[in-house]
Amino acid sequence: MATVRLSLQECEAICKKALSKAGLNDAATKIISENITKAERDGCRSHGLFRLPGYCMALQSGRANGKALPEVKNIAPSCVLSDARGGFATPACLAGQSLLVEKAKTNGVAVLLIRRAFHFAALWPDVEPLAAKHGLVAMAFLNSQAFVAHWPGGLHRMYGTNPMAFACPRRSADGLSDKPFVFDQATSFMARGDMTLAAQSGESIPPDAAIDQHGQKTSDPSAGLKGALLPMAGHKGTCLALMVELLAASFTGDAYAFEAAATSGGDTLPTQHGEVILAIDPERCSAGGGREAFLQRVEALFDMVQAEAKEAEAAGGSLRLPSQRRWANRKRAMEEGFEGFEVSEALMSQCVALGE
Amino acid sequence: MATVRLSLQECEAICKKALSKAGLNDAATKIISENITKAERDGCRSHGLFRLPGYCMALQSGRANGKALPEVKNIAPSCVLSDARGGFATPACLAGQSLLVEKAKTNGVAVLLIRRAFHFAALWPDVEPLAAKHGLVAMAFLNSQAFVAHWPGGLHRMYGTNPMAFACPRRSADGLSDKPFVFDQATSFMARGDMTLAAQSGESIPPDAAIDQHGQKTSDPSAGLKGALLPMAGHKGTCLALMVELLAASFTGDAYAFEAAATSGGDTLPTQHGEVILAIDPERCSAGGGREAFLQRVEALFDMVQAEAKEAEAAGGSLRLPSQRRWANRKRAMEEGFEGFEVSEALMSQCVALGE
Repeated sequence: MATVRLSLQECEAICKKALSKAGLNDAATKIISENITKAERDGCRSHGLFRLPGYCMALQSGRANGKALPEVKNIAPSCVLSDARGGFATPACLAGQSLLVEKAKTNGVAVLLIRRAFHFAALWPDVEPLAAKHGLVAMAFLNSQAFVAHWPGGLHRMYGTNPMAFACPRRSADGLSDKPFVFDQATSFMARGDMTLAAQSGESIPPDAAIDQHGQKTSDPSAGLKGALLPMAGHKGTCLALMVELLAASFTGDAYAFEAAATSGGDTLPTQHGEVILAIDPERCSAGGGREAFLQRVEALFDMVQAEAKEAEAAGGSLRLPSQRRWANRKRAMEEGFEGFEVSEALMSQCVALGE
Repeated sequence: MATVRLSLQECEAICKKALSKAGLNDAATKIISENITKAERDGCRSHGLFRLPGYCMALQSGRANGKALPEVKNIAPSCVLSDARGGFATPACLAGQSLLVEKAKTNGVAVLLIRRAFHFAALWPDVEPLAAKHGLVAMAFLNSQAFVAHWPGGLHRMYGTNPMAFACPRRSADGLSDKPFVFDQATSFMARGDMTLAAQSGESIPPDAAIDQHGQKTSDPSAGLKGALLPMAGHKGTCLALMVELLAASFTGDAYAFEAAATSGGDTLPTQHGEVILAIDPERCSAGGGREAFLQRVEALFDMVQAEAKEAEAAGGSLRLPSQRRWANRKRAMEEGFEGFEVSEALMSQCVALGE
C-alpha cells in the first residue's frame, strides 16, 4: 500500500475544505477539523483522517445537519443542557463546557447533557480538557450503535458498544499536568472494527467476543459480524451497557440503540446520540482539603503504579496505563523536526477530492 | 450440615444482642441489625447473618469504633460529607442520605462522600432507596481490600475488588416501583469467596481469574489465593478498578487498598473505607420533560429487554436482569406463611453465643 506523509497543518486544511464543501458551518468545520487532526497527532488513527469521508457522508445524506448551531440551556443549578440540534456532538460539547465547569466549581459537581447529537469522534477528547485544564474529575457516557447482545441469553443486537470515558487530574511541577489519567473504553468485549479486520485476514476471534445469527457463541469473525458482539465480562458488561443506555439516552430523551436500529431501515447508526458528562471539583467536593490535597493523594496512587511497572519490567514484563501511547505520540508530534504522519495515498486522494 | 430455620424477627434480635454486647451504640446496632436481616430476607447470604461474627470481631479488635456517631457536613451546594469517624459505613450513609436527596432535587445532581468508614455490607442497599423512594439515578463507588493485581503485567495485589453499584428508578402503576434497576458488582473477575470455595472443593478456576505468587496466570484456586485476583475484562477492568480507587479514596482522603494493606501488618482489610455516591434527579436534570418522561423512556428500554427475554425462553434459554432473584426472595419473605430462612446450626449457635 502506497503511503504519503502529511503534516498536521496539511491534515487540518484537507479536513476544512472537505467539511466546508459538504455543507458544514464555519464554526463546526473548525472544531471538527481540529479534532480529527488532534486524533492523528496522538496516533489515534481510528478517529483521524480515516473518519473524514464518514463525516462528509453524514452531512451529504442529511443525517447530520451542517447548518445546526448548538443551543446551551441552563436547566438547573448543577445541570447544563447542550442541544446539538442534529449537528455533530463535538461543537455541542464545547459549547456547554464553560457552563459545566462554572457549575462544577460553584457547586462541587455538575452534569452536562448533550442531546440530538451525531457523535462520530472518540470520547476521550470530551473529558481530557476538564481534567487537564480545569482540574476536574470527569466521566462521560455515550450510547451508540446497536451491535451488542444482552448476555447471557440474548439472541440479537440490543445495546450500543456504549463507551464510557473517565479523566482524573494529575499534578505537574507547576500545577496541573497536561497528561491526566484518562481512559475511554467500550463496554463490548471487542471493537467491531477489530472483528472486521479478523474476518479480512481469516483469523479467529476469542470465544467470548460474539454470537452468530442463531445466538450461539462463535470464534468465526464473519459469523460474529452477522450476529452480535458480546459485552465485556459477561453479565457484568451487560449491566454496564444498560447503565450507559439509561444515562445517555433516558436523560437526554434520545433514542436507545435498539430504537435507532429499528427506525433506520436496518442501518444501525443512530442519527441522534445522547451523551452525559459528569464533572466533580476536588476543590469544592473533597474531604481531605481541596485540590492540592486531592492531587497529592492521586500521585501517591500513581507512584505505586510506577513502582509496580518498574518491578514488572525488571521481571521481563510490562505494565501500562491507558493514554501512555497517546502522550508519547503527542510529544513527538509537537517536537521540532516532526515529519508528519503516514496515511495511505488512497485515503489522502479520497479526502482531497472531497474538498474539490 | 444440620440447619435450623430463623424468622426475620429472630435474626434481627440475635444481631441486636450480639452487636450491643460487642459495644456498638444503640442507633448503629439497630441499623446494622436491620441491614443484615434485609440481606437474609433478600437471599443475599453472603451479607446476611454470616457476617455478624465479622462485625463483632471488628468492634472487639477496635478496628471499628462502636461508640462513633457519624457527623454530616454540608461542604458545597451539591456536596455532602458524612464522616463515619471510624464506625460502620451504613449509619454514615443513612445519616447523609436526606441532605444528598435534598441537594440532588434542588440542583439536579449531588454527591455524598463517606469517609473513615468500616464498610462490611453489600453496596446495593446504599443506592436502592435513592431510586425506589426518591426517584433518583444513583451510582456508588467503594474502595476495598487489596486483592487485585494491575493487569496486564502486574505481579502483586494492588487494588481492591472495588465494587460499583448503580440504581435507576422504574415506574409502577401508581408511581415509583419498589423494584428499580439495580446492580452491584465487583471490578474483579471473580469473588475471593468463590475462589475459596473452589479451593475447598478441589475445582479449578477460569484462567483469567487469578495469578500465582510469581505473577503467572493460574487455574489452581489455592495458588490464586496466595497470589492475586485479576480484574474483570483484562485492562478494561484495571481501568475501572483505578477509577473506583480514585473516586472513593482520593475525594474522601481515605487509604488506597495498597496503603491499607501496607499498614495493617499483612492483613489486607482497610480500617477506613472511602465511598462516593452520586445522585442525579431526572426531574431537574433531563432534557425530555422531567421524571415522568424519564420513567416512560426507562420502561421503553425494559419492555425491549422483556421481549428479548421471552424470545430467549421460547428458544430454551434464559435472560436475566440483576436483582431479579433478590426481588423474588423479598416477595416470598414478605408473604403470609413465610417459614423463615435456613442457616447452619453452627452459625446460629455462634451468633447466639456472641450475644450472651
